[in-house]
Amino acid sequence: MVNFDIIRTGRAVLHVTDLEKSKAFYDALGFILTEEDEDTLYFRGLEEHNHHSLVLKKRPVAAVEAISFKVRYEQDLDKLEELFLKQGAKVKWMEKGTQKAVGRALRVQDISGLPVEYYAQMDGAERLLQRYDLYKGAKVQRIDHFNCAVPDVQKAYDFYTKELGFACSEYTVDDQGQNWASWLHRKPNVHDLALMNGVGPRVHHIGFWLKDPMALIDGCDVLASLGYSGNIERGPGRHGLSNAFFLYLRDPDGHRIELYFGDYLTSDPDFKPIKWDLNDPMRQTFWGHKAPDSWFDEASEVLDIETGEKIAIKEPKLAKKKPQFVI
Amino acid sequence: MVNFDIIRTGRAVLHVTDLEKSKAFYDALGFILTEEDEDTLYFRGLEEHNHHSLVLKKRPVAAVEAISFKVRYEQDLDKLEELFLKQGAKVKWMEKGTQKAVGRALRVQDISGLPVEYYAQMDGAERLLQRYDLYKGAKVQRIDHFNCAVPDVQKAYDFYTKELGFACSEYTVDDQGQNWASWLHRKPNVHDLALMNGVGPRVHHIGFWLKDPMALIDGCDVLASLGYSGNIERGPGRHGLSNAFFLYLRDPDGHRIELYFGDYLTSDPDFKPIKWDLNDPMRQTFWGHKAPDSWFDEASEVLDIETGEKIAIKEPKLAKKKPQFVI
Amino acid sequence: MVNFDIIRTGRAVLHVTDLEKSKAFYDALGFILTEEDEDTLYFRGLEEHNHHSLVLKKRPVAAVEAISFKVRYEQDLDKLEELFLKQGAKVKWMEKGTQKAVGRALRVQDISGLPVEYYAQMDGAERLLQRYDLYKGAKVQRIDHFNCAVPDVQKAYDFYTKELGFACSEYTVDDQGQNWASWLHRKPNVHDLALMNGVGPRVHHIGFWLKDPMALIDGCDVLASLGYSGNIERGPGRHGLSNAFFLYLRDPDGHRIELYFGDYLTSDPDFKPIKWDLNDPMRQTFWGHKAPDSWFDEASEVLDIETGEKIAIKEPKLAKKKPQFVI
Amino acid sequence: MVNFDIIRTGRAVLHVTDLEKSKAFYDALGFILTEEDEDTLYFRGLEEHNHHSLVLKKRPVAAVEAISFKVRYEQDLDKLEELFLKQGAKVKWMEKGTQKAVGRALRVQDISGLPVEYYAQMDGAERLLQRYDLYKGAKVQRIDHFNCAVPDVQKAYDFYTKELGFACSEYTVDDQGQNWASWLHRKPNVHDLALMNGVGPRVHHIGFWLKDPMALIDGCDVLASLGYSGNIERGPGRHGLSNAFFLYLRDPDGHRIELYFGDYLTSDPDFKPIKWDLNDPMRQTFWGHKAPDSWFDEASEVLDIETGEKIAIKEPKLAKKKPQFVI
Repeated sequence: MVNFDIIRTGRAVLHVTDLEKSKAFYDALGFILTEEDEDTLYFRGLEEHNHHSLVLKKRPVAAVEAISFKVRYEQDLDKLEELFLKQGAKVKWMEKGTQKAVGRALRVQDISGLPVEYYAQMDGAERLLQRYDLYKGAKVQRIDHFNCAVPDVQKAYDFYTKELGFACSEYTVDDQGQNWASWLHRKPNVHDLALMNGVGPRVHHIGFWLKDPMALIDGCDVLASLGYSGNIERGPGRHGLSNAFFLYLRDPDGHRIELYFGDYLTSDPDFKPIKWDLNDPMRQTFWGHKAPDSWFDEASEVLDIETGEKIAIKEPKLAKKKPQFVI
Repeated sequence: MVNFDIIRTGRAVLHVTDLEKSKAFYDALGFILTEEDEDTLYFRGLEEHNHHSLVLKKRPVAAVEAISFKVRYEQDLDKLEELFLKQGAKVKWMEKGTQKAVGRALRVQDISGLPVEYYAQMDGAERLLQRYDLYKGAKVQRIDHFNCAVPDVQKAYDFYTKELGFACSEYTVDDQGQNWASWLHRKPNVHDLALMNGVGPRVHHIGFWLKDPMALIDGCDVLASLGYSGNIERGPGRHGLSNAFFLYLRDPDGHRIELYFGDYLTSDPDFKPIKWDLNDPMRQTFWGHKAPDSWFDEASEVLDIETGEKIAIKEPKLAKKKPQFVI
Repeated sequence: MVNFDIIRTGRAVLHVTDLEKSKAFYDALGFILTEEDEDTLYFRGLEEHNHHSLVLKKRPVAAVEAISFKVRYEQDLDKLEELFLKQGAKVKWMEKGTQKAVGRALRVQDISGLPVEYYAQMDGAERLLQRYDLYKGAKVQRIDHFNCAVPDVQKAYDFYTKELGFACSEYTVDDQGQNWASWLHRKPNVHDLALMNGVGPRVHHIGFWLKDPMALIDGCDVLASLGYSGNIERGPGRHGLSNAFFLYLRDPDGHRIELYFGDYLTSDPDFKPIKWDLNDPMRQTFWGHKAPDSWFDEASEVLDIETGEKIAIKEPKLAKKKPQFVI
Repeated sequence: MVNFDIIRTGRAVLHVTDLEKSKAFYDALGFILTEEDEDTLYFRGLEEHNHHSLVLKKRPVAAVEAISFKVRYEQDLDKLEELFLKQGAKVKWMEKGTQKAVGRALRVQDISGLPVEYYAQMDGAERLLQRYDLYKGAKVQRIDHFNCAVPDVQKAYDFYTKELGFACSEYTVDDQGQNWASWLHRKPNVHDLALMNGVGPRVHHIGFWLKDPMALIDGCDVLASLGYSGNIERGPGRHGLSNAFFLYLRDPDGHRIELYFGDYLTSDPDFKPIKWDLNDPMRQTFWGHKAPDSWFDEASEVLDIETGEKIAIKEPKLAKKKPQFVI
């Protein structure tokens, strides 16, 4: 049993190439802009009481700087450092004051090469849950999860479940019964982190929770009326795996956002992870739709926590197959 | 058979006492302001291609100046004048140019004393049905119907069905089987005009069509977040009579607005009007809720088409009973 | 001006090859089975007060026997016969008693070769609009429209608008400004009949009206849970043309059904038909999705009203292009 | 910090007087009947993978036998026993085998006199989350919370937060700033247990989570069509406190059920409990509706865990006021 407490998916830090375009897009989607400066946008969802869950930094090249988890106690960060050092991972402290609104943060290059950040403290912001007059677009409620392509799912799965205390809600096996993809959670819904066999490490998408299914339909209508129909990549549909009602969008730099609603409570230790066969047609989309090629092939590259350079990507260990990623 | 064609409910002309308050309220509800001047606001719904369906005039006393129906042909107005003159009704022409955006209009004091207007032509306005980026509040789509309290329902029913060509979709009878209330239509849904036994002539409410049931829920949330929870009088609920999902609001002057969605097609001559017993608890609200006293007792008074003075109201012919008005 | 009154889309008469499969499918969709015999199923929607709007006959080959419109008066049928005879069309009477629940009906091979039926009378059936306990699947409310592929849209458009009294709500033109597709209505919503340039005469789909957008989402879920995900061909999505929220299904014989919700009122003579360019990407799907090839290429063949043989299909007059059909 | 882990609201054990009536009611609502015998019904929600969350026992008098919480480990039960014994509470073991489908359970008469049960193990049942073909009524998804009237909220609040590890999400204070009502949770949404100043100990209602807002509207329609409109006590409405979309029902014995959807994530230690003033009109209902008297005055009485007799109820410590209970 772990001696620290990772609470939940916290925030994503993305590099984007055109801040105005990004601002317009995420604003249309219904995000709340907490703060901005010349180079950075800080967005949050309508129910979020923390300063932000999405940071967009203007940089020459689009990439993922970090995916972050919030931990319960300040000292959990030290315990995590100890664990990662023991494992031989690259580790880097971001001292309080170096990142806006966030306390001391620990960054690591995780077992798959993903740039992962942990923090315990973030400044507050007004929670706008009942300011319905400010709701618009898809009425984004809060950050929900990260979905990542990694070359060795089993290895990452082992580390996250055994060393970091994540539980598995659902998973996919290939013909040989090998772990092809896994949905892992700390907060008790389907996932905070999904790991899938694929060219990686890359971040496939960042999932945000919506208030209800009609918010997703309304979101499509508003995006289309503002000229963003080309940014709708897949959906609306129902996932077999997770049961969520979903929509996939590409932001102006190609970062993929999932609008996600309607999974279930995974609080119980006797909940048996749901096993899906890679070839089950309803796993991918319960209603039977096929995803476009772009959805299988494209994902955001990630950065080295020290050098800021792109991490080299590798072919996956198991066979790539379409469907390669699932949710 | 009539030799003119009343198409549908057209517009309401209301007197209000504080234009700024009214503007804020109807804007919050999601109406589109087509045009305004010092004394007048012209609102339309999102799908409406005509200039307006709601006119608010600043006057010292709140009242209903006219409820209007649109007719197919210009000459239908002359045929209607002939009919009303024959009947001995007060008739008044509003020549083209005297009312903004509306062609020649015929005003009459109808058989119940209601100020009713007919017009064939109204200027166009941009139809915003697919400008989802402009949707807000309850996303009001279009005007649907008028509901009026009259002292003698049977008399009014006879005139509207026999002389004006309205068809009855549903009606309510009292213990003696007398016509207590009737829902009459020209366009093929449940009503353009409902007539109910009550102190009158008064306009009980003006009904507007919504895009879907969630627009009504969203409307409640937005109105409440803007401080209008006190304006929500009744609902949300499902009508037994008409089957519509409804919400009743009071505007800042007490004029009652119904948000209305989900009745049915009444195009067929073999559609048998649905008869409800006055005491059927599901007639009023399918889900069994009671309406507040204000809803039974209060309605907007109406004006004389010539003098502009309030029309004297009379006690109804049949027993008043709570439920006095229904939908 | 025409001297008869076609009210609305009435019913479709389809040939299917396996009655049990068809019964299970339409039942899952939420249709009400009014009556059945060894060879025939009679289905209706939840609000329909007429005996049926969909007839499925067991036959060796799947095809469309007739698409039917309801007229106001018995004598309208005679006036229609006169018109079609004058035009030189094939005409055939189905006397009362020869078709279950339907009065005397006039069948014609229309100007495009489509088998069209007109009738004034149909037996009643219990209207189940408020029997919510019987709602299931996509909660199909009523029949809405037919969409047909014809080789010469302009010719058919002229006949339907000039001779039969249909009005046009929206239309599509090709690069030369030629009429590529038209949405025509008698009841005042977007269409009772859409005509599109394509290999024809064929019936592309039959549209049914739903109670609200969530009924469409629920319908997808229920169909998928019953094993019909393979029958979902396209959608859910929002049409640019018509503004409707839609889903296309293929029944067990490949007949295409559209679940359709949310167009608008087209009652007014001053409503200006909306013109779309064939290449406008939002015409097809407002949210930007592409339709699958099957949706462009496949449609139901139709029968000769006299011989019962399939009508020979022809290449269209204008260039076929994907998107060939739109809504 | 506590050394055991109460996971979540687990199940309610109710006494009812007519099993057939209860069965019909909860079935109409959309509960799944896992099992039944002559005297007992075991119901679960659509996503629940445990045998039941609602037990109805046929008894001469309606009452609440127990409200139950699920704990993580078997040994948590022993630690809880130790705590309650130290506190001087009545404690009773229900050995494995004495209750169907449930492992060893600890029952206590809590600090307010409520009969509370803890258990770690319950038999599994097929999870029907994706059997949409079985969805009906309000499509009840899972148990969410208990709401109880207690005479001394502060005392109960202290015990639950300090000794049992519950966190407070929202609370209400009276004019003197005294704790008038508190919403407490273990799973990270608004509550597993609400405590309100009132004649008690009594169980005001049991809350069940729905899939989305339309499920609540659909639930009203289905209940009404089956003759249960008289069982709808309050709503639909939006709670100010919790933000949930709600409906209150009375079962055939008067036990109150809340259909509840749409609160928010309360996972974070830096989430500041939201304070409401007792007289804030939006606390009770965000849309401004008043609750009926029955909702303030009536609640289910509870039983002594040893004698099975009703626990004597006491007047509350703070002034009773309408609104007495809130959510």
